[in-house]
Amino acid sequence: MDSGHVRLDHGSGGEASLELITDIFLRHFDNQYLSKMDDSAVLPPVYASLAMTTDSYVVDPIFFPGGDIGSLAVHGTINDLSMQGARPLYLTVGMIVEEGFLLEDLDRIASSMAHAAAAADVIIVAGDTKVVPRGHADKIFINTSGIGLVPNGLNVAADNARPGDLILINGSIADHGITILTQREGLDFQGTLASDSAPLHSLVDAILGASPEVHVLRDPTRGGVASALNEIAHQSRVGIELSEDGIPIRKEVRSACEILGLDPLYIANEGKCLVFVAEKDAQRVLKAMKKHPYGAKASIIGRVTSDNPGHVLMRTQVGGTRIVSMLTGEQLPRIC
Amino acid sequence: MDSGHVRLDHGSGGEASLELITDIFLRHFDNQYLSKMDDSAVLPPVYASLAMTTDSYVVDPIFFPGGDIGSLAVHGTINDLSMQGARPLYLTVGMIVEEGFLLEDLDRIASSMAHAAAAADVIIVAGDTKVVPRGHADKIFINTSGIGLVPNGLNVAADNARPGDLILINGSIADHGITILTQREGLDFQGTLASDSAPLHSLVDAILGASPEVHVLRDPTRGGVASALNEIAHQSRVGIELSEDGIPIRKEVRSACEILGLDPLYIANEGKCLVFVAEKDAQRVLKAMKKHPYGAKASIIGRVTSDNPGHVLMRTQVGGTRIVSMLTGEQLPRIC
Repeated sequence: MDSGHVRLDHGSGGEASLELITDIFLRHFDNQYLSKMDDSAVLPPVYASLAMTTDSYVVDPIFFPGGDIGSLAVHGTINDLSMQGARPLYLTVGMIVEEGFLLEDLDRIASSMAHAAAAADVIIVAGDTKVVPRGHADKIFINTSGIGLVPNGLNVAADNARPGDLILINGSIADHGITILTQREGLDFQGTLASDSAPLHSLVDAILGASPEVHVLRDPTRGGVASALNEIAHQSRVGIELSEDGIPIRKEVRSACEILGLDPLYIANEGKCLVFVAEKDAQRVLKAMKKHPYGAKASIIGRVTSDNPGHVLMRTQVGGTRIVSMLTGEQLPRIC
Repeated sequence: MDSGHVRLDHGSGGEASLELITDIFLRHFDNQYLSKMDDSAVLPPVYASLAMTTDSYVVDPIFFPGGDIGSLAVHGTINDLSMQGARPLYLTVGMIVEEGFLLEDLDRIASSMAHAAAAADVIIVAGDTKVVPRGHADKIFINTSGIGLVPNGLNVAADNARPGDLILINGSIADHGITILTQREGLDFQGTLASDSAPLHSLVDAILGASPEVHVLRDPTRGGVASALNEIAHQSRVGIELSEDGIPIRKEVRSACEILGLDPLYIANEGKCLVFVAEKDAQRVLKAMKKHPYGAKASIIGRVTSDNPGHVLMRTQVGGTRIVSMLTGEQLPRIC
């Protein structure tokens, strides 16, 4: 492969575009749908409800401990489908690349996306690449859209939380956001921080297999656990009570948050899932989560109440109570 | 609505994000899927093959005669689905917005997208908005991904052109690209230029209704008619012969091309469709196209041969023959 840089004509729709597609994207993503190179991919018939989602990724830096913009883009869209209980099937990839971007880096990102997709058994069926002049974008932005199949009769939604539900999470919070922030600022925390970016579809399978009474699944990305829970409290018209000592946070993340003056409840996660389940099934779901590689540190972090609908309260370790509001203002632009 | 500017916290995932979504996107796009505000939209079951596609739009300027980046993004993805013979159903919208972008312009773009979607009977079921710091992107980039239903037994594909097929187009070429270019450069051609941006699904319905022997449909966007035909010649392993006097070009577009030294065959179109159909059905398809508002100026522009496989030849008006290659180099960055 050319060891050079992305040129404007790589986005022309002409010969150089074809070369880029063939040399990089088809080489990594090759499959029967993409290789047809039609205006859209024609997929086999399905006989189920579909879930459909989209997300653009603008994370900076594009390579970071635990992943890169490519794997993040694949995991993120897989997770958005999984949170609806859907089995992710197909992804599309839309790239906006700045003129002068290293072809080597583009190749590395495409390779990472291909591996992430293969590991999750999803197929990248269509793509698009635009190149913009130097300075019109910063390095690379990636959109992934995806569709998945929703099992019959499943009703997992943000407006479905019910008083009495327990709230679980599959592990430590704030790893992704703190990793990106410290990388970007060149802060040194002895290299122990890493993004939690991961595909959660098989964990969700295990969760749904453990109980038919799972009411809400939500991945607390931008805005963190606090914002996700506030949205659910609002949409389901219920109250939420968190217990501070139940929330897993890695020691080094907690230290970084303290030093930086950030509340981990508002920091983005990319491999975490909030689970609302009827109390009677909570232990069974917790056990199923703990058996899964992405749920070993799962924990019960709170419960749903009929009191204080629309609000999230935290029972603190010292016995007090504080209101946890949605994120106001912006902590960290380009976190995902 | 706030008459101000897009702020970084509009992309935070917190309160301001919710405000932006509610004030602009839900207001314009409102529907039962989007208003659930879940991680992905859950859609009704389908019982047919799906077509799936994605495209990112980075056009500059964002408002131009004949449309804007929003309508273009909706039309473009509708067209990519239509070119597979699919009936477009659902779109997702992923926006990347530069900090400081006018909320008024964002509102105007969302309104334009909503109108374009409604006019084509497609539903915007999911969305995502990222805000990047000033200077990290130029104004706004929009990704639209879409799915549609492919009628049973239809085989319309770029590798399906057959010797003897006639090649039709639904009207004049190069309108979009020349409009964008002259707008960007501030050239004055007496305001007679306008983009041809249009949704082609109903024209495609008419075409497919007129003949079961339609073999290829392709919208000649970036790279123009020349690049699209070269791709088809290559993928179908056939030759293509164009006749220069059959190709419709508006007089003012031809003049602009001459002044700017551009070949209209390489200029982007956003409302044009190349149709490959068995010769016996060509007149019937032509008639059906001419009856449609987006096909009034339809014309037969060439034929498929078994000679010169992989190549496109032009019979010129003066009786000569020249090879029409794919676009090499880049004529116009950010044309779509």
